[in-house]
Amino acid sequence: MNKGKLCIIPLGGLDQIGMNITAFEYNDDIVVVDCGLAFPEDDMLGIDLVIPDTTYLEENIDRVRGLVITHGHEDHIGAIPYVLRKINIPVYGTKLTMALIENKLEEHAMLDAVERHIVSFGERVSFGTLGVEFIRTNHSITDACALAITSPVGTVVHTGDFKVDYTPVFGDPIDLARFAELGKQGVLALLCDSTNAERPGFTNSERTVGRALDNIFSDHAKSRILVATFSSNVDRVQQIIDAAARYGRKVVLEGRSMRNIINTAIEIGYVRIPDGILIDISQIRDYPDEKTVIITTGSQGESMAALSRIATNMHKMVSIKPGDVVVFSSNPIPGNEKAVFKVINELSMKGAEVIFQDTHVSGHACQEEIKLIYTLTRPKFAVPVHGEHRHLMAQRGVAIAVGVPKENVMILSNGQVLELDQDSAVVNGEVANGAVFVDGLGVGDVGNVVLRDRQRLAEDGIVIVCMTLESGTNTVVAGPMVMSRGFVYIKESDEFMEEAREIVSYAMEKIADKNITSRNKIRENIKDALSSFIWRRIKRSPMILPIIMEEVL
Amino acid sequence: MNKGKLCIIPLGGLDQIGMNITAFEYNDDIVVVDCGLAFPEDDMLGIDLVIPDTTYLEENIDRVRGLVITHGHEDHIGAIPYVLRKINIPVYGTKLTMALIENKLEEHAMLDAVERHIVSFGERVSFGTLGVEFIRTNHSITDACALAITSPVGTVVHTGDFKVDYTPVFGDPIDLARFAELGKQGVLALLCDSTNAERPGFTNSERTVGRALDNIFSDHAKSRILVATFSSNVDRVQQIIDAAARYGRKVVLEGRSMRNIINTAIEIGYVRIPDGILIDISQIRDYPDEKTVIITTGSQGESMAALSRIATNMHKMVSIKPGDVVVFSSNPIPGNEKAVFKVINELSMKGAEVIFQDTHVSGHACQEEIKLIYTLTRPKFAVPVHGEHRHLMAQRGVAIAVGVPKENVMILSNGQVLELDQDSAVVNGEVANGAVFVDGLGVGDVGNVVLRDRQRLAEDGIVIVCMTLESGTNTVVAGPMVMSRGFVYIKESDEFMEEAREIVSYAMEKIADKNITSRNKIRENIKDALSSFIWRRIKRSPMILPIIMEEVL
Repeated sequence: MNKGKLCIIPLGGLDQIGMNITAFEYNDDIVVVDCGLAFPEDDMLGIDLVIPDTTYLEENIDRVRGLVITHGHEDHIGAIPYVLRKINIPVYGTKLTMALIENKLEEHAMLDAVERHIVSFGERVSFGTLGVEFIRTNHSITDACALAITSPVGTVVHTGDFKVDYTPVFGDPIDLARFAELGKQGVLALLCDSTNAERPGFTNSERTVGRALDNIFSDHAKSRILVATFSSNVDRVQQIIDAAARYGRKVVLEGRSMRNIINTAIEIGYVRIPDGILIDISQIRDYPDEKTVIITTGSQGESMAALSRIATNMHKMVSIKPGDVVVFSSNPIPGNEKAVFKVINELSMKGAEVIFQDTHVSGHACQEEIKLIYTLTRPKFAVPVHGEHRHLMAQRGVAIAVGVPKENVMILSNGQVLELDQDSAVVNGEVANGAVFVDGLGVGDVGNVVLRDRQRLAEDGIVIVCMTLESGTNTVVAGPMVMSRGFVYIKESDEFMEEAREIVSYAMEKIADKNITSRNKIRENIKDALSSFIWRRIKRSPMILPIIMEEVL
Repeated sequence: MNKGKLCIIPLGGLDQIGMNITAFEYNDDIVVVDCGLAFPEDDMLGIDLVIPDTTYLEENIDRVRGLVITHGHEDHIGAIPYVLRKINIPVYGTKLTMALIENKLEEHAMLDAVERHIVSFGERVSFGTLGVEFIRTNHSITDACALAITSPVGTVVHTGDFKVDYTPVFGDPIDLARFAELGKQGVLALLCDSTNAERPGFTNSERTVGRALDNIFSDHAKSRILVATFSSNVDRVQQIIDAAARYGRKVVLEGRSMRNIINTAIEIGYVRIPDGILIDISQIRDYPDEKTVIITTGSQGESMAALSRIATNMHKMVSIKPGDVVVFSSNPIPGNEKAVFKVINELSMKGAEVIFQDTHVSGHACQEEIKLIYTLTRPKFAVPVHGEHRHLMAQRGVAIAVGVPKENVMILSNGQVLELDQDSAVVNGEVANGAVFVDGLGVGDVGNVVLRDRQRLAEDGIVIVCMTLESGTNTVVAGPMVMSRGFVYIKESDEFMEEAREIVSYAMEKIADKNITSRNKIRENIKDALSSFIWRRIKRSPMILPIIMEEVL
């Protein structure tokens, strides 16, 4: 049981972007850091969300002391309602983070069931032998923090998602002094954000976007302006509102998550709204175009988001007119490029001018910032986190470049148990880990078998052969009937489907000749006959589903 | 019939990347330029290729004089075998272009059936009242040309896909002098490549990639090197081979299209292979790692391409070892990012060093090159081609910037007929146009109905209810049976499926009570009962397919 060692067990977040969750364990105490979801990959057809397998935590529930959250992004908080349903542990986070978690718990009717603690930067919380200190950082959401996790064998620093912003829009710059102090006292291991570890240089300050927005507002004084951005980027929204105020425009917040998150931020005082500037979307017709700004969701081309609905004339209150200016204050997340371009094309066809360059900065540290944190904390061991394998390897390169010995950079996989003491870091064993699919209300009821079926159905559709046999014999009482969906256009493929029926009938004759009565064998014979006929004729492999019923006697 | 007008009719290639095909028509003469395919969009499930609807050409076959091809990329030649099966017209193209077309025709056993003409740069071909002159350009495939299309009302210049490369690897730079000469004589309209019209500046010369490759070879003298690139980029492959020769390495060409295209280029003398440098993949084990280079397909992360198979240990002859260097001499085409990163991660997990920055240049002109062509040709009208709407609009901006009057920039849609005479350009009417899906051997038998079914099946699967009724009554003889595929994991959803069966039985009872015997009505009732049960319980909408059979009497 790894007595006397600090174990770091990533249950998600490695070799992927998303689903961040890591257990820190010393003897009888386990602290969990973050509890995020992942968005489904392209081959996870029909899946809404992906959450981590937390079997290990469930099995050790008596030792789990708390859940500590670094910041309020979905890939760090999105799985909380699902996981806390199984392991109800107290949750710790900063003000905005907790407010967003509370929104989520409320939606799942779990607010009363969960113990919650709002923490401040600099605060330290004890979890038995483990302690967690919250350190201010900068990120694309306010109130992000790094963690200093203390244990009897040493201190581990977890950066969370961060960048170094010397001129943040809200709050203070990252607490570099505290990182330095920890470095002087001795840091056993650094778990550092790898998202931008492939990129040289520094990430620009959030404030630079404000200046770009200002120019756009100044250049388009006669147009209505729509700005699409991430609803969780509270500081971005603040800057758009500030620009609107400077140029005398009213502001509409559009899209469910935009209204939810920004209203939450307003309530806790994290967004400052000049008097009377915010109007409801229903009021927008009362103002001339050049006196309005719509801040909207949909910057990733999400088909159901407000901007997509506006672009395709499916929005109840807003449609695009020639002369409108649409700003994408965002970059497409890899995989979303085509969806984003589709929306841009739609907007452009309706006469809008679309601006999608130089109006976004990343929330993650590039190589020079990563080097700064390594240089301040001087960790004995480096454990790159938060990224695909290529990102982790890129950070490995950075860590080595600033002096971490090659053998002290630990590239882990989800589920691996990294055992640390004062002098050593060793991977020792693996715990249950993986992805659990959420589809509608179902959690975990869609697995790989169902997904494989969906992929097959998506590729070539399904052909169903249906018949009723006399009980125990191979005498056909009804059918065979051959139907298809997603296979060929039936109205124009009459003959082909008729041939398919004949193939089945012929197969049934041979079955009768051979006196086969086993239902499994009959199904197999029909399947083989039909699939080889279809492949020969049309080079497709639909799913073939023979259904045999028996007469109710 | 637009007598005395030059009509330009794009049948594909606008508001999309791919499927380039444009008809030029003057009285009784039609010349078709290019005949490309498009790759399926994400929502075109199971579709292999998309080809243009050529109904208009089929209906006017007696007037169609020839098919002129600008270069040998799939989006310009890929639909030739499918289209020529319907309209067999003579094909004109430069040497490499024609060699690649011939490969294609041979695969479709159509080589003998098609009249083919290899043309040279500067050559002019007459098609009745229309004439076509082939002008040398540069592009990411050798032997690309622009066209000067002459007609009684004036000359139209079509750039094809181009860039300006003053230092090409093979052949000469783009024939700017001829563009200038045409400009002096008077150009009625310019159809110019819009692919990179959003990008400021110049596209770098192909030769710059050679220098980057040279550095990589020099830095990794001890490693095996794999380079993934586009098989059609003959000059790129030449430069990799040249680098290999300089560093004393043997070269393997891997992947079906890499071998096909490069061997074709070798045969016609467009790639020069130093003696003895090319080896078969089966010989690679005879040489030390640091003496070999593998040039492979798969730079777009295509799951069946050689590089993906190598990365996932599915390749018969090659697997990745720590220390291997893999160079992506390519950029991901929008939409392929995730697939490319997946391969990069796989390679990285197996210990390869992956280089994917600064080893590629585009084949398309950026804004400054587009301005150059406008400035040389001084067209009266501008017709941006080859691009999504955002690209066409970006070129519109460039054209206006260099002095084309706003009202003389014609943004067309596929199928629109642009009527030109010496003084005017007017959109007058629209002809049949659209996308035809190729799936396996089927051309056009998968349409929107089938695709919608596939999308539905992909999303939530299918639930099938099957029963046999007594002829003409609603008495159940066999069943009801409820089965599903791609819906829920059946082994763990026994109870749920049992409840679904009960819902169907209950619906049948109500049907009996109401004395309903119409098969349609019964099917409808079952569908409604089941779909509302499923939505209520699990918030999913699988396709529901009730099948009713009747006893064979």
